[in-house]
Amino acid sequence: MRVVDTEGQSVKFPGSHILSITQFERHDIESVFAVADQMAPYARREKMTQVLDGAILGNMFFEPSTRTRISFGCAFNLLGGKVRETTGFESSALAKGESLYDTARVLSAYSDVIAMRHPQAGSVAEFASASRVPVLNGGDGANEHPTQALLDLYTIRRELEGRGRSIDGLRIAMIGDLRYGRTVHSLSKLLSLYKKVKVVLISPKELSMPESIVEGLREAGHDVVVSDELETNIRDVDIVYSTRIQEERFSSQDEADVYRGRFRINQSIYTQFCQPNTVIMHPLPRDSRAQANELDADLDNNPNLAIFRQADNGVLVRMALFALVLDVADKIHDSAKPVPWYTGGR
Amino acid sequence: MRVVDTEGQSVKFPGSHILSITQFERHDIESVFAVADQMAPYARREKMTQVLDGAILGNMFFEPSTRTRISFGCAFNLLGGKVRETTGFESSALAKGESLYDTARVLSAYSDVIAMRHPQAGSVAEFASASRVPVLNGGDGANEHPTQALLDLYTIRRELEGRGRSIDGLRIAMIGDLRYGRTVHSLSKLLSLYKKVKVVLISPKELSMPESIVEGLREAGHDVVVSDELETNIRDVDIVYSTRIQEERFSSQDEADVYRGRFRINQSIYTQFCQPNTVIMHPLPRDSRAQANELDADLDNNPNLAIFRQADNGVLVRMALFALVLDVADKIHDSAKPVPWYTGGR
Amino acid sequence: MRVVDTEGQSVKFPGSHILSITQFERHDIESVFAVADQMAPYARREKMTQVLDGAILGNMFFEPSTRTRISFGCAFNLLGGKVRETTGFESSALAKGESLYDTARVLSAYSDVIAMRHPQAGSVAEFASASRVPVLNGGDGANEHPTQALLDLYTIRRELEGRGRSIDGLRIAMIGDLRYGRTVHSLSKLLSLYKKVKVVLISPKELSMPESIVEGLREAGHDVVVSDELETNIRDVDIVYSTRIQEERFSSQDEADVYRGRFRINQSIYTQFCQPNTVIMHPLPRDSRAQANELDADLDNNPNLAIFRQADNGVLVRMALFALVLDVADKIHDSAKPVPWYTGGR
Repeated sequence: MRVVDTEGQSVKFPGSHILSITQFERHDIESVFAVADQMAPYARREKMTQVLDGAILGNMFFEPSTRTRISFGCAFNLLGGKVRETTGFESSALAKGESLYDTARVLSAYSDVIAMRHPQAGSVAEFASASRVPVLNGGDGANEHPTQALLDLYTIRRELEGRGRSIDGLRIAMIGDLRYGRTVHSLSKLLSLYKKVKVVLISPKELSMPESIVEGLREAGHDVVVSDELETNIRDVDIVYSTRIQEERFSSQDEADVYRGRFRINQSIYTQFCQPNTVIMHPLPRDSRAQANELDADLDNNPNLAIFRQADNGVLVRMALFALVLDVADKIHDSAKPVPWYTGGR
Repeated sequence: MRVVDTEGQSVKFPGSHILSITQFERHDIESVFAVADQMAPYARREKMTQVLDGAILGNMFFEPSTRTRISFGCAFNLLGGKVRETTGFESSALAKGESLYDTARVLSAYSDVIAMRHPQAGSVAEFASASRVPVLNGGDGANEHPTQALLDLYTIRRELEGRGRSIDGLRIAMIGDLRYGRTVHSLSKLLSLYKKVKVVLISPKELSMPESIVEGLREAGHDVVVSDELETNIRDVDIVYSTRIQEERFSSQDEADVYRGRFRINQSIYTQFCQPNTVIMHPLPRDSRAQANELDADLDNNPNLAIFRQADNGVLVRMALFALVLDVADKIHDSAKPVPWYTGGR
Repeated sequence: MRVVDTEGQSVKFPGSHILSITQFERHDIESVFAVADQMAPYARREKMTQVLDGAILGNMFFEPSTRTRISFGCAFNLLGGKVRETTGFESSALAKGESLYDTARVLSAYSDVIAMRHPQAGSVAEFASASRVPVLNGGDGANEHPTQALLDLYTIRRELEGRGRSIDGLRIAMIGDLRYGRTVHSLSKLLSLYKKVKVVLISPKELSMPESIVEGLREAGHDVVVSDELETNIRDVDIVYSTRIQEERFSSQDEADVYRGRFRINQSIYTQFCQPNTVIMHPLPRDSRAQANELDADLDNNPNLAIFRQADNGVLVRMALFALVLDVADKIHDSAKPVPWYTGGR
């Protein structure tokens, strides 16, 4: 296992930072997913645990975020812990010229584990190197957002389970802004750990997947198809992973509209071109405005639209990481209790 | 009972959204108030409960608010639950074109119940229709703020208890900006569920109560008096409900000052014109600046000034709604424990 | 003991406000420090307590702050309590003309104790006078920040313990902006309660310690040295307390740079001029930018650099104050439990 401690040495999960998907080998990922599976009944409120009663999460979001921040906080609460939090930058000593080293030394004394987002690439690792407690990277600019990559892969695994397929042998189409989209880069890197994957990369030429990522997939022995046509390329895939086409990437609004029109999926396109049980994923948020909706609202009743299960899985994966890093994964079942309040049977 | 679920069907409280005062029939309100009564010893820290231990409130304030937000959060904490929270709009995916439907699908997975404020009328109901957990409306623009209306009526009921009077037969004067004031509209609608109420509406003509509200009161058989004179109309009422005159509603500062001067209540006016035990209410905040103070600070030692008890009651009403919606109202007493820390005997 | 209640009367700690260091006599400080000592194993996660389970802290920061806010919240969480919080001013009714009296009456109903920061001097005391629960001053503008002063003195006491010295007989150099620096003023006042202290005040003449503070030290019988030279004056002290030289205090950047250069401490200066075990303190944040670093990063491995232990001690002191004010200091050991999660053995 290559999960590393602050000195860059290999250690097991307890006490480790989770900074990058490059830390994970395939069996590490399987460990995380196995623990995430065990978290499902707690996230569904079928039972509850207080295994982290008394523990404190420092939920340090130096860049605003509602859902990722709350997903981390909720995951920690579901394990019984408490959350201290910051949102945004202005009130921080970082803005007054304090080094990340000092900030990390001070803030890491306040909690048992830290989830951190920061706009600057590399900042979370720099913070972690001075932190006295494990740090989970919640996104450091254009660099990494490892929990998103893990929840994407976990979603693929869970969605395929009922279909008699697995990540080995997966066929996936990635669609949209593949050049700047952090999630498709990370997912591609994780897929390199698996076997015989077919990856169809559908994007405008201006927004095509960086060559280094494509090379990585090919070096892993995967079959990579590159195209700027949607319909002909989503016929034989298990997963359609859609992302947003951002208009600011194009020289004119007209050009942006051409591409957005070409990569839009609605129920009619799905029925006509996809396999009947092709899974639809998206990292969210999807833009619901008429000129930009890459996934039309008429898909919302399609049972293969997995975008909200995908978001839900983020809680499971984050619970699993907290449990592994704080070394309580094997104590959860013993502490399980029935839930005494209304849960809606979800 | 007309409390509705997401399909608009009648259900009991457990699992229901609380979106509008129009959901409530008189016996529903009595149910809420009976539970609120039971919450008083917990809010006064005479005992404590952990009945919602492990439950999470999503306190989603897409419009900033300190006191309503904290009142909801405090109410949930007093029942033993934890709170995840957002304040303001900027960091939200809503600002990036995400639909309320998507936001609701994602965020509602993180908590067991949601309290939500949003600047746009109807937005909370739209959110609720996609939410997987019950949603309590914490104010949606000019539309509804049902917990404020309930706490106002609950305050009237409690204040009158010691005076041998009740909401049936109530005499109340509403004063100030009756045109735009959301609280007086909602309170008037709730009063239509009761009998033989006398409502004195005191405002500048420009800020008079909307005709539809006045009609509703008259259809309920209530006695409605409309006036723009304060002193002669507050003589024979049980409750004086004061609201702010907002200067921006008038063509000139001079005109605003005329009206503000005419509707200002201080101890001298109270003594001269009111019954000796007339209750004074206000939705707060009251403007303490000299040119605007509708309730003078010299009333602060008047025992009939109920404005802070009114704010306190918000915690009781919100505790009651949480307990009803999450179906733990009848489990609270069994979980009661003594409070081991200093409470000030409040 | 002169800790005061809302009527200014002397009371014991339980239920008291903590507004100013002038409330404390020497034996009060010793009481706080004795309780803080007992908090250390909880802050180090050697054991945990839930003594404030069910209690709510209102962490009211009307002026943004990350570390002081989180330090208060963390201290309360470590005692088992929950935290409701506000950050910044804009969303507050205070901005709409509400008096601090009203704000205090309303907000103090939501919690069992309040920690408050506000940009206006005197505002926290004004708030406290209307509050129904104890208020801890977390900083009111240029006025007071008593928990910082207490943690500074507590740090001095703990650092000296292993050196066979004590606050009586202490030799301390205060360096930098002594005119505007709130922390050095407060620390000087606290030192007046002790015996035979030598205080070396090193600053540019423009930023020298106010005469009233110097007088107070001399009246206490202390030996005060005033200088604008660093090296010759840090030779024989137990503590070097460095603060930031702020460039905006000088007429030109050049002049600021002269002084900053003269008061900068790095490992070379430390080795050359200080005793081998002189303790280095700083209220943080220290400015790490090249033109301003009063304490160079090359000191970070010097075991006598106490600046992070100093920040850590803030949690202990705040835990102690909460425990004293809420009267649970003697109940903590009975409620102690082992910590079941990974703690890193810190």
